[in-house]
Amino acid sequence: MTLKVYLAGPEVFLPNGREIIAAKQALLGQFGFSPSARQGEFVTWTNRVQGEIGREISRHNEALIEEADLLIANLTPFRSISADPGTVFELGYMCALGRPVFAHSNDARDYGDRVRAEPSLAPVSVVGEKQFAKDGSAVENHGFADNLMLDGGILRRDGVVIRKSVPPETIWTDLTALAECLDRARSALASL
Amino acid sequence: MTLKVYLAGPEVFLPNGREIIAAKQALLGQFGFSPSARQGEFVTWTNRVQGEIGREISRHNEALIEEADLLIANLTPFRSISADPGTVFELGYMCALGRPVFAHSNDARDYGDRVRAEPSLAPVSVVGEKQFAKDGSAVENHGFADNLMLDGGILRRDGVVIRKSVPPETIWTDLTALAECLDRARSALASL
Repeated sequence: MTLKVYLAGPEVFLPNGREIIAAKQALLGQFGFSPSARQGEFVTWTNRVQGEIGREISRHNEALIEEADLLIANLTPFRSISADPGTVFELGYMCALGRPVFAHSNDARDYGDRVRAEPSLAPVSVVGEKQFAKDGSAVENHGFADNLMLDGGILRRDGVVIRKSVPPETIWTDLTALAECLDRARSALASL
Repeated sequence: MTLKVYLAGPEVFLPNGREIIAAKQALLGQFGFSPSARQGEFVTWTNRVQGEIGREISRHNEALIEEADLLIANLTPFRSISADPGTVFELGYMCALGRPVFAHSNDARDYGDRVRAEPSLAPVSVVGEKQFAKDGSAVENHGFADNLMLDGGILRRDGVVIRKSVPPETIWTDLTALAECLDRARSALASL
């Protein structure tokens, strides 16, 4: 049986999103997976009341997650030092369903390293074992790619978070980390 | 029976986090709710391998969500133009459990308005019904507080997203929006 994968990620927002999603889906096939059905379809924006289309896409995406056997999240930071919120929501959703979750990111840094590189939050001060941003807020220091609920939720379910450092111009098109993630997922699920 | 609420939010990272969480828990009591048990306990950081403590907090928080009857998320933007990723993960988790979810934010703006105010993303151009950030990425225009998976997930479950505009200095301490959220949650759950 071919396992169905829900590919969570912010690619839908990108100018070349359709092409990237098509390439990601093709890669799934190379590892013996198939995309959650209908993924890649784009809902049309015509003749809808504002808010209605958003609810419809939300419903559609949740249905795709519900019918998937596993979820693979692209946690590459999007418009911030963290992953896309929609992607994070979907990751949490799949964790609650108790199905396998895996993740990849084209930013190899720890979350804390991105905080240290963010002008509005740096410098980060170290007090004993704790670290604090400029505004006094505590900075996680777990060696994770993002907030501990994300990495923790994945690792505790025997998933992996594959991180690669790639040049900015290929941050959304380089699928090396995704391929490694799919390889690890295939191995993990074959041994179940 | 007193319903147990999981209070999702980034307050744990704040210098005055303990006091704010205590005040939020006290407010729960005023509306006839109780906090998900053990919430507000802080795990100690001593003698742990890096990563282990993060997994333990992740496990602990998921257990608190699992035993809660409803979740209330503080979606006030944290270190970015969006909600705290841990909070978003937890919101998605509770949506998958099929239990009631509600949210509040002390930033009254639409997500797109925050994109337009973010120097690295502005100016936003309008092409027909669509809007695009400086980098060409599409900007959601649903009239929502954040990514459509968040607002859509809440609204489709008959929850509410209460937004208030407050001065920066009280953005984490002003509990007016939370109080309104609790009032709405109490009414919604009483009518079930």
